Amino acid sequence: MGSDAAANVTRELARYLVSARPQDIPATVKKEVSRTLLNWVGVAVGGSGHETVTRALEAVTPFAGAAQAQIAGRTERLDIMNATLINGISSHVLDFDDTHLKTIIHASSAIVPPTLALAEYLPAISGVKFLHALTLGIETAFRVGNSVYPDHYDIGWHITGTAGSIGAAVAAATLLGLNEQQMIWALGLGASQQVGLRESFGSMNKSFNPGRAGQNGLLAALLAARNFTSSDQMIEAKRGWANTVSRKQDFREITSDLGTRFEAALNTYKPFACGIVIHPTIDGCIQLRNRHRLEAGSIARIELRVHPLVLELTGKRTPKSGLEGKFSVYHAAAVAIIEGRAGPRQFTDDAVSAPAAIALREKVTVVPDSAIKESQADVTITLANGERRRVMIVDAIGSVANPMSDNALEAKAADLMQGILPDARARAAIAVCRDIAHTPQASDLATLLRR
Amino acid sequence: MGSDAAANVTRELARYLVSARPQDIPATVKKEVSRTLLNWVGVAVGGSGHETVTRALEAVTPFAGAAQAQIAGRTERLDIMNATLINGISSHVLDFDDTHLKTIIHASSAIVPPTLALAEYLPAISGVKFLHALTLGIETAFRVGNSVYPDHYDIGWHITGTAGSIGAAVAAATLLGLNEQQMIWALGLGASQQVGLRESFGSMNKSFNPGRAGQNGLLAALLAARNFTSSDQMIEAKRGWANTVSRKQDFREITSDLGTRFEAALNTYKPFACGIVIHPTIDGCIQLRNRHRLEAGSIARIELRVHPLVLELTGKRTPKSGLEGKFSVYHAAAVAIIEGRAGPRQFTDDAVSAPAAIALREKVTVVPDSAIKESQADVTITLANGERRRVMIVDAIGSVANPMSDNALEAKAADLMQGILPDARARAAIAVCRDIAHTPQASDLATLLRR
Repeated sequence: MGSDAAANVTRELARYLVSARPQDIPATVKKEVSRTLLNWVGVAVGGSGHETVTRALEAVTPFAGAAQAQIAGRTERLDIMNATLINGISSHVLDFDDTHLKTIIHASSAIVPPTLALAEYLPAISGVKFLHALTLGIETAFRVGNSVYPDHYDIGWHITGTAGSIGAAVAAATLLGLNEQQMIWALGLGASQQVGLRESFGSMNKSFNPGRAGQNGLLAALLAARNFTSSDQMIEAKRGWANTVSRKQDFREITSDLGTRFEAALNTYKPFACGIVIHPTIDGCIQLRNRHRLEAGSIARIELRVHPLVLELTGKRTPKSGLEGKFSVYHAAAVAIIEGRAGPRQFTDDAVSAPAAIALREKVTVVPDSAIKESQADVTITLANGERRRVMIVDAIGSVANPMSDNALEAKAADLMQGILPDARARAAIAVCRDIAHTPQASDLATLLRR
Repeated sequence: MGSDAAANVTRELARYLVSARPQDIPATVKKEVSRTLLNWVGVAVGGSGHETVTRALEAVTPFAGAAQAQIAGRTERLDIMNATLINGISSHVLDFDDTHLKTIIHASSAIVPPTLALAEYLPAISGVKFLHALTLGIETAFRVGNSVYPDHYDIGWHITGTAGSIGAAVAAATLLGLNEQQMIWALGLGASQQVGLRESFGSMNKSFNPGRAGQNGLLAALLAARNFTSSDQMIEAKRGWANTVSRKQDFREITSDLGTRFEAALNTYKPFACGIVIHPTIDGCIQLRNRHRLEAGSIARIELRVHPLVLELTGKRTPKSGLEGKFSVYHAAAVAIIEGRAGPRQFTDDAVSAPAAIALREKVTVVPDSAIKESQADVTITLANGERRRVMIVDAIGSVANPMSDNALEAKAADLMQGILPDARARAAIAVCRDIAHTPQASDLATLLRR
């Protein structure tokens, strides 16, 4: 980039953020962000009982402040800063949150918790304001992520934590009503706090990253609101954010078409509680099962032609734990046919050791084929009687080209909340998300998420 | 590095850290760390009234927890996490804290605050334990810093915040008594949280970085103590810390001669409250002033031959604020001769606009000379009567080769606390630092720092 083009990235972005009004955001974008919120509600409540969450909660409770904000899916209330950490961990721990496929950013687990905590803490935050803050925060995270992707991710950053800190700062700053200079400082302080390395994958540290990112952004915005200063050019300066965390910088991704092009509209949701590379396979297995009313006992062989990455990332033949099950295309195909779904309950320790699942996964053959795209799978099932059923998945369910329907998203959220919140309350929470722009008090959502 | 040599860096380091006992640390190292602590006490109290501190305190107070830990130089007490942030900001805001010259890490502002807060929070932390935790934390920060310096710093990281997060995790983990596996996780969680870009220099964001680093490390250790897991190889893994934040990795700097070579013994302290490149000049001016009882009125000309960096970094001819004064070798030379010192009071807005200082700095000529080293200055003063006085400074006071004496350090700390703490209490705090290894309760130090 020429130095002129890069001279005022932080300021240009801040100027847009403080001038954008809710009525300027296209309805389709608002709709997608309300779907992001709905998906977050499901995963945050669904993950709230996980040991990762419990351990973090035990660690922070002794020094937490007043009961300002609800922990989703639990009884505890903590100060806004600590609530943000715990809700961020809950919402990422199932690996079932939203995904911006261009950058692999899972925005909601970093950005919703601080925004919802602030909506409880500040007086009179309407659903319109709340949705607007989320929209600008997510939009910012995706744009700054685009500017450094893929190099930033390739070298080792867990981009959800890094871009998430900046997005969370923007969402919190928007609710706090910061002016342009303060928004510049919030961006600077948010960009100063980078959390998350990919080496954390497979440990509790992974869920910590978006939780901490939410805190980073919230603290950045609260400091900026008190005129705690930062650089005016933290994103673009020579020793600022983009140049330090990446060898690639494309600042047009941040500043071009602000207000007309919306990355937030490209968010997607996983229909299945495992790595996205197996989704086309699961989609194909469920389609064949439902279309032909297949039962496991009548199946002789399952053949999958898939992108080579599938075996590389999820080639575990005999998973020993629920977590390993998420990295087994064999197990995923088996449970998809047996149960017709692949939610968190299909990836527990019990699920991978169930005799029916073990028997069926041994009938699965996987053929890597570089002619098959990542979003595709070619599934052929041979029955005991020799008949064959086949489906070619071109765009798996949950992709940008083939998004989950509103009904499917609501069913996913309800399924995740089942057994944790009373059904009536879970339904009410879903209804608030569906109609967030007409909710007078955004904090009502937090109240509904109390166990 | 071969993959074998780099395979167990995090574990080797953790194994040393949890096995080292206070009696294994050489007396000279303990002595240096007690000097680091003394210098920290001075700068933390001295900086405590700064607007940067006040704004941060206003921002965090509404969500702070119980009054667990003292804010140095003030009346407030906050929970350990928020106290760590504020004390970290106070102790860096004057740019007068300790420096590891090999890496430019200012360790104490990141590492002392969480350690002192924990010493108040945990029962019965002796001075011996406290000093030991500080020693291991500082040693770790310098070693991980060495492993990636200079590339890590050159690309833009404020290494005090980044290495500081890891060092703070170790100090806190040591006081918490973590076992080897937990120490590995504390290192991993600390290394996951990187704070500070050099673009923050010149704004309040700079002091925020060590404050946040202290919090990062404290949170890492508290989580690890609850068995919140991380990677076992966060420092050395391909997508772990060193490979992500630097293009240079020398893991021998971390693991070689653990327990026999001590980087913590190389810490230094600034005698003057400004950029280190001007220190040889100030040293020379003060020496000539005192040796020849010079008075400003009798001086016709001051000629400085200095390393070229001096003019590059501190060439402001007419500083308009105290902060600009720190970047003016002209002002620094003038006040050194007029007042015989160059502490914070010589770099205020008033000090740079004092007529005597303005008159004398106009008599200063600076000649860059690449034959002069950074630690050197050649100062020649011509009197009104034509006589000349000259001194060649080879190793400026405060360098590793010419360290500040214990008396000079105590005088510096006393000077910084003057007018903030009662003199008797300041003297008592200095005495505790001097004799920290014989202090039964480390928390006594925190109590003494209450305004």
